[in-house]
Amino acid sequence: MRRHHLGAVLRQVHLTGPISRAALANRLGLNRSTILALTTQLTAAGLVYEGASGSTGRAGRPSLVVRPESDRWYVLAFDVAVDRLVAARVVLGGAVLERREAARRRSRYADLDEVVGVLAGFGRALVDAAPRSARCVGVGVSYCGLIRAADGMVRLAPNMGWTDLDFAPALSGQLGLGLPVTVGNEAHLSALAEHERGAGVGHRNLVYLHGDVGVGGGIIVGGKLLDGDDGYGAELGHMIVNPHDGRPCNCGSQGCLEAEVGEAALLEAAGRVGGPVGRDGVRAIVEAAENGDAAARKALDRVGDWLGIGVANLINLFNPGAVVFGGTLGEIYQGAAPRIHARVAASVLPVSQERAQLRTSALHDDATLVGAAELAFRCLLADPLDALARITA
Amino acid sequence: MRRHHLGAVLRQVHLTGPISRAALANRLGLNRSTILALTTQLTAAGLVYEGASGSTGRAGRPSLVVRPESDRWYVLAFDVAVDRLVAARVVLGGAVLERREAARRRSRYADLDEVVGVLAGFGRALVDAAPRSARCVGVGVSYCGLIRAADGMVRLAPNMGWTDLDFAPALSGQLGLGLPVTVGNEAHLSALAEHERGAGVGHRNLVYLHGDVGVGGGIIVGGKLLDGDDGYGAELGHMIVNPHDGRPCNCGSQGCLEAEVGEAALLEAAGRVGGPVGRDGVRAIVEAAENGDAAARKALDRVGDWLGIGVANLINLFNPGAVVFGGTLGEIYQGAAPRIHARVAASVLPVSQERAQLRTSALHDDATLVGAAELAFRCLLADPLDALARITA
Repeated sequence: MRRHHLGAVLRQVHLTGPISRAALANRLGLNRSTILALTTQLTAAGLVYEGASGSTGRAGRPSLVVRPESDRWYVLAFDVAVDRLVAARVVLGGAVLERREAARRRSRYADLDEVVGVLAGFGRALVDAAPRSARCVGVGVSYCGLIRAADGMVRLAPNMGWTDLDFAPALSGQLGLGLPVTVGNEAHLSALAEHERGAGVGHRNLVYLHGDVGVGGGIIVGGKLLDGDDGYGAELGHMIVNPHDGRPCNCGSQGCLEAEVGEAALLEAAGRVGGPVGRDGVRAIVEAAENGDAAARKALDRVGDWLGIGVANLINLFNPGAVVFGGTLGEIYQGAAPRIHARVAASVLPVSQERAQLRTSALHDDATLVGAAELAFRCLLADPLDALARITA
Repeated sequence: MRRHHLGAVLRQVHLTGPISRAALANRLGLNRSTILALTTQLTAAGLVYEGASGSTGRAGRPSLVVRPESDRWYVLAFDVAVDRLVAARVVLGGAVLERREAARRRSRYADLDEVVGVLAGFGRALVDAAPRSARCVGVGVSYCGLIRAADGMVRLAPNMGWTDLDFAPALSGQLGLGLPVTVGNEAHLSALAEHERGAGVGHRNLVYLHGDVGVGGGIIVGGKLLDGDDGYGAELGHMIVNPHDGRPCNCGSQGCLEAEVGEAALLEAAGRVGGPVGRDGVRAIVEAAENGDAAARKALDRVGDWLGIGVANLINLFNPGAVVFGGTLGEIYQGAAPRIHARVAASVLPVSQERAQLRTSALHDDATLVGAAELAFRCLLADPLDALARITA
């Protein structure tokens, strides 16, 4: 129990930032003397410290708050996306500090060794550049593919042509930090990040839709990430929305949400194949539609209708408090919100409509990195003293 | 902790039936002396007893097993379905004993007072007929409508024309047992029942699809019922599968799974409107198809295709170990399994196909009652001694 409570306090300080002991007691449902004992123990371990809040309390005395020891503990967070590789140092408390980034050519047959080599180089450089007093306590990776929960195996990276790769041990070995590497699906980790630090804070049930080359999803059910038996849950991009004359999908099926609202569908509908791709390409269409371009408007409306059907289905299934659009779907939501809302109004049961709020990502492109960092911090937050003992052994 | 463990032991005995202390220790991850202390306390409270297992152990001595005191504790379980009202006495250990049942005419405007009156009459008769030594410890209701989790309010009973009814207090008052009445959605409770005692035992993730006049669902995510923010989750009957030329749905939308695979869709496709309805009507079509009736075969194939799309979407979203078909969908699955499997093969990501097993309900028409009984036992199993103190006060 003590371990569990120590973790809960550290997690709260990590997520909320400076917080008074009274507020901690309140949030965690523990009495103040227990909180004092726990924060004393965490202070002794060098994980938190107490200091003045900066603002003065009613009585004129500055009140004390507990803060994370952000200068002493950090994780490495990586993002393996279709068109970029990113690495960042993320400190206890959640701030994303130094980062390294490389663009990748979009290729279906990228080389594992090359990707691992680039990431490991970034990681070592970030460790070298960190203050001498700071220590790395975990490594997390957001990956644009299906990740087996049991062992982190990359089962399928649909837009990269990889299958069944043991990516984590390769990266762990090349980093040489003696730390295991934890891998998660990019959309799952984005959902986790939005839930803990973004547009979904405070919601027990949340649906996150992510658009990139493909369309992925992450879903929070009862405060926890839906993973499924093996970690492959929330593949909302492969929900069939258009069975009649649906476009072929990368997965081999047709009429999937990804096939109808992904980047390729939008570019094609707008007659812009061969022009800019990715976020830039999508943003250009949204801007053109706002400026009266009829083809762009029609394309956005079409994609918005399909997206609306997908969203309506998800609200009926999950009765969520929030639906969050990230990546290119964030742009599309901004450009086609009325169509999406109309579909929700037409097809969601009224009782579930009452609740669901639609909004764009708050963390934007950082969602994957923030999620990967939370994955990397998980061991420390679950059992702080045990984790430190292992790391400093 | 003690309370929690007492509940865990009682729950295990309730769900598995006669079980040795060694097996209890093993399943619950507790040591044998703790289990002995807990079973001693539960025995003293009259909730379990120990006796010979019936079979002899290796050493020739009959081994001891812990059994639920089924003669002493029971709940009332009710099922308010579109075309029937059922009540049963369900004892600790889960056996469904005496029951009362009344057919109802299918009417969109059934009268609340009448329904409550019939149910309360059944309930009082069951209590009167119970052994004098037996005590009612809870009341649970399975209801064919949307139930607000916070207070059990019936928000919508789409095939009965009721909205926003405070059903539970009315039934509690008329029963006069001094016990609160807990209400749940019929498909949610069926999923719970299949998960705990039926076709889904042992699966952390389970999708249950229920066909009646409408189509409902219950989904287990990570071992827990998906309820959503307000209790309206898992409305898979209102997932849009046919947006092009979909049939109108009772919910006001069109092309919903319910509209394409519900009873009305099948009867119409088979040219059998005006004939037998309900389970009988659906069974007749399945039998006719098996006997070579071309119209029946075509109708089942059509409905099987739409059901297959719905199932494929659900497997991609939930990566479940089992998909269970209940009610009329159990019949349809048996009559159209190849079409459904073909759709799953075409549209589910291979990694999620590996896992999901499709099967029919094991509890059949008892699923709702069994689920309602589990709801009614929940208080007792959460904190046995505290619950008994309140009941016998």
